[in-house]
Amino acid sequence: MIDIHPLSSFRPGLRLGIDLGGTCVKLALVDEHGRIRALKKLDTPPAPRAITPALRKILRSWVKRSLLGTGVGVAGDVNPVSGTVLFAPNLKWRNVPLKRYLRAAGVPEPIFFDNDATAAAWGAFHVELPGRSQNFVLLTLGTGVGGGLVLNGRLYHGATASAGELGHMVIDRNGPPCCCGSRGCLETYLGGNYLVAWVEGEMNRLGRKPPADLSPKTIAQRAAQGDKICLSAWRRAGEALGTALSNLINIFNPDTILLTGGVAAAAPLFLPHARRVVARNRFVSAPKVVRLRVSTNHRHLGVIGAALLVE
Amino acid sequence: MIDIHPLSSFRPGLRLGIDLGGTCVKLALVDEHGRIRALKKLDTPPAPRAITPALRKILRSWVKRSLLGTGVGVAGDVNPVSGTVLFAPNLKWRNVPLKRYLRAAGVPEPIFFDNDATAAAWGAFHVELPGRSQNFVLLTLGTGVGGGLVLNGRLYHGATASAGELGHMVIDRNGPPCCCGSRGCLETYLGGNYLVAWVEGEMNRLGRKPPADLSPKTIAQRAAQGDKICLSAWRRAGEALGTALSNLINIFNPDTILLTGGVAAAAPLFLPHARRVVARNRFVSAPKVVRLRVSTNHRHLGVIGAALLVE
Repeated sequence: MIDIHPLSSFRPGLRLGIDLGGTCVKLALVDEHGRIRALKKLDTPPAPRAITPALRKILRSWVKRSLLGTGVGVAGDVNPVSGTVLFAPNLKWRNVPLKRYLRAAGVPEPIFFDNDATAAAWGAFHVELPGRSQNFVLLTLGTGVGGGLVLNGRLYHGATASAGELGHMVIDRNGPPCCCGSRGCLETYLGGNYLVAWVEGEMNRLGRKPPADLSPKTIAQRAAQGDKICLSAWRRAGEALGTALSNLINIFNPDTILLTGGVAAAAPLFLPHARRVVARNRFVSAPKVVRLRVSTNHRHLGVIGAALLVE
Repeated sequence: MIDIHPLSSFRPGLRLGIDLGGTCVKLALVDEHGRIRALKKLDTPPAPRAITPALRKILRSWVKRSLLGTGVGVAGDVNPVSGTVLFAPNLKWRNVPLKRYLRAAGVPEPIFFDNDATAAAWGAFHVELPGRSQNFVLLTLGTGVGGGLVLNGRLYHGATASAGELGHMVIDRNGPPCCCGSRGCLETYLGGNYLVAWVEGEMNRLGRKPPADLSPKTIAQRAAQGDKICLSAWRRAGEALGTALSNLINIFNPDTILLTGGVAAAAPLFLPHARRVVARNRFVSAPKVVRLRVSTNHRHLGVIGAALLVE
């Protein structure tokens, strides 16, 4: 019933990984062990077609002839067959023929495309949990909340590569409005932007001037120093996360759920609250069998997983 | 990337399917096309080990020598490797060595086990949607609300065969308490028992004596005749279902979601409300690509899918 999908099934050699995010594009040459052999970063160009000359320049400085192919993770809705970016809100791209631009830059073929969080899940599955997971859920906690799925040992991306929008699971139909059109999505509690807005709102409500430097990081620092509003923010986020985790456990019965992304660094402040909610789940085996972990190596999972789309 | 899993991959011949539910056990001989060739029903015995003589009697009346094996769908938490029923609340079974009892009855080997809703999903995938689905979510609407998943063209049952508990997805953390320990699970709005309890509660609140024959079926009949409380019950259930469907669309990006089970017969009363909620989902491709359907042939999907566990 179960495919084991070890790293050893990857062909030896280097593949190009591209992680296309809202603020930067990360490029890496990655070997069959998921190790980065070369890494470059550039700012995401506002005009999509400007990616061609930018990539061409980087590729010139890298040995190309031995590359096995290219894998691309896109922060948005991408058609994996045509390589068209249908909609990428953080990049403000719509209907961009990315494959054509990459070909024009001379990236090695074949070229594979997937959602960036799905690619990160694929990277984590191989690099952080090699051989130890078959049914795996990744939650990426950053400005937004995303997710990626590896099920039955294989990447899962759904009918149009849009699966894993775990941040937009509604856990409270009467909760705060979300950019996606629903209310009470997980992201409205745990997404970096929403977290900052909630703390600002509470400070204003209590007559405290919100500091200019509010961010998930400074909210964590202030909470660690005992700031009550900031502690409440993490408790609220953690409880919402707990409900979402309990849902994911009931839906996927996964062996592992991994939290990654910048906001995951604050896990000591929110994860105990999440675990408390998960502990209420009275199902027999699923809540017991799952390993809930915080990623130790989250910085490059996206670009590694993108590269490993080239098997 | 995609496995096509057509019926033609099943070996020709008959397999025994057993659908073990809270009130009855259904047995069928099923061919490689998913067609039922013989069918028997018996009451679920209160003492688990009484299943051995009951099955032995039925099997004696069926030709055994040509059977390819046995597939069992269990309404509960079953270990698919050991064949032990860990916990089946509707059967009131706990730690029952079902495989041993089935062997003693002489069922054909090998024997495969899975959750009953997962088995029903496998049956629907092959019988209702042959060749037309790769990523498929089944929702079973009955006394409780269950689910089954076929992902990347393959049965998905998770780490311990407990995946697909879709009825226990929390959509309102502050909603009604659920038997599972959470609040506001989909089942608390749409499950037959909860639906009846809500209508009774509303009638009492408004000084109307609840009729003795309240059931999802009579609530549907009364709603069709214009009863306001019964209409509200379906609207409330439909809106909750809409949130759950929107979540499932964001999580799975499925090509098909199928509703089955006795309560699905009332779909004309609740599905329009669900669709209205789903229509609010602003994601680009996932809500557009999904086919949302009501099963036309729900009566035997469980036992057919159980039999097809023998590939």
